Amino acid sequence: MEPESTPIGWIGTGVMGSSMCGHLLARGHPVTVYNRSRRRAESLIAAGARWVESPAQVAAASEVVFSMVGYPEDVRQVVLGDDGLLAGARPGAVLVDMTTSQPSLAVEIAERAAAHGVQALDAPVSGGDIGARNATLSIMVGGPREVFDAQYELFEAMGQTIVWQGGPGAGQHAKMVNQILVAGTMVAMSEALLYAYRVGLDVTAVLASVTSGAAGSWTLTNLAPRVVAGDFTPGFAVDHLVKDLGIALEEARRARLALPGLALANQLYVALQAQRRGRDGTQALVYALASLSGLDWPPSPSY
Amino acid sequence: MEPESTPIGWIGTGVMGSSMCGHLLARGHPVTVYNRSRRRAESLIAAGARWVESPAQVAAASEVVFSMVGYPEDVRQVVLGDDGLLAGARPGAVLVDMTTSQPSLAVEIAERAAAHGVQALDAPVSGGDIGARNATLSIMVGGPREVFDAQYELFEAMGQTIVWQGGPGAGQHAKMVNQILVAGTMVAMSEALLYAYRVGLDVTAVLASVTSGAAGSWTLTNLAPRVVAGDFTPGFAVDHLVKDLGIALEEARRARLALPGLALANQLYVALQAQRRGRDGTQALVYALASLSGLDWPPSPSY
Repeated sequence: MEPESTPIGWIGTGVMGSSMCGHLLARGHPVTVYNRSRRRAESLIAAGARWVESPAQVAAASEVVFSMVGYPEDVRQVVLGDDGLLAGARPGAVLVDMTTSQPSLAVEIAERAAAHGVQALDAPVSGGDIGARNATLSIMVGGPREVFDAQYELFEAMGQTIVWQGGPGAGQHAKMVNQILVAGTMVAMSEALLYAYRVGLDVTAVLASVTSGAAGSWTLTNLAPRVVAGDFTPGFAVDHLVKDLGIALEEARRARLALPGLALANQLYVALQAQRRGRDGTQALVYALASLSGLDWPPSPSY
Repeated sequence: MEPESTPIGWIGTGVMGSSMCGHLLARGHPVTVYNRSRRRAESLIAAGARWVESPAQVAAASEVVFSMVGYPEDVRQVVLGDDGLLAGARPGAVLVDMTTSQPSLAVEIAERAAAHGVQALDAPVSGGDIGARNATLSIMVGGPREVFDAQYELFEAMGQTIVWQGGPGAGQHAKMVNQILVAGTMVAMSEALLYAYRVGLDVTAVLASVTSGAAGSWTLTNLAPRVVAGDFTPGFAVDHLVKDLGIALEEARRARLALPGLALANQLYVALQAQRRGRDGTQALVYALASLSGLDWPPSPSY
């Protein structure tokens, strides 16, 4: 069977999932779709996807099923639940979980899938809603190398940087590496901006000096100007990062690894949730750091 | 008098100072030089610089004097000491301290210089020895705007990104912003690499996935490969960063600002000094983080 006509299943039609599934539809694959709320699948149904009433029914109709849901417990339910993908999957099917989720759950899924004659990949992404829309995602894949190779063209429809990371769970671990970097770099940017405001600098001039050299980062280039403009709308929401950092800390604990910078970032983001900023973008971290010193954002100069 | 023939003074002929002063010599300025150790000024003397026996004698021979020394106490001695620049400076002279030093000391120097009819700029740099050699430094300048404007061509001989940051001390504050970013980004990179090794990932594959997206930074692009290669030679040495972070923490305290990420980075770098790695490059931070969990670097996978 030509890859162009592989029957695809898709679970999870949020902002990212809808864009990603849309790219597969656009390549001519027949797509069967399910989502907790049907309303959010309507645009895909209008574009030709077939709606069914459960993950199991999606799996029964598909050779390759992608899931892109919220939390590890959602992944567990969708894949391993009574009406889940594994309950409906044909022998030889491939399950690809693209949710950012627990590496240990990815290993468990791979093992239980194998017992059903089904293969599993974990394939979380980075690049956010813009990367999903433009098919420029970075896709980090764990699972058997030959299964990854066989599905490469499907990943190519959704992403730009597609790298096999190793066996089951390795994709999720790579995503945790990504999130450790994202969170830590955001702490650095937030403290740097807070310092700059507080000592009375012209923040635009400072950014002109520091952005292009050894202090530079994607975060500084792209999110510092948003903070300066007072724009805290989410590219990536605080609530989602808190989920990811919790996974990373738990995995680090299992690996007997203390990561004090990650722990600090996590606590600052939990503080931000306590301040009812869970739906803000992650760049809202400046609020948590300012409040630690009893300051509003932006802070007035101290002298 | 044409800028090309401005009599220049230079104090401090370490690796960076020698390169920077060399660019001014190459533009045809007469240069008078002093350094604590004459030996390290020999290459500049061979290139045409005139040696004198004290900072005061340098100032007496110069319209514009640059200093690029080690620690704030060295700056205090060179500029304000008995035989210092201010003791020898002509009325109308300009003193430019390019050492990374205390903002509060820069303000004190500007005030005491003004009382002598002398003007002062603080103009620390980033870009390291390579930036100094290639004249691609970022130069962050504090002091009177018109004094900055008048010396712009001299800065241009040494740097690429030359930005006026505000009044006295603002250049040093901007450099502190730079160092807060550098240190925090390094903590993030070090924890990310430690996690990657510890959970058994192929670190090269991980870097291929995370370097070009939202997790990316100059540090990740340039220093992570060095860490992976076991190269801990200094671009910028731990001892120097510890000096800078101490200044930043003290300034933050004066501004009544708690910066927990900066404090953590500082402690990890102090730990690295305790491990006799003060002369290593700042990317050696992975050693401090590994040892926190009782691990060697690189750590073996935990499972």
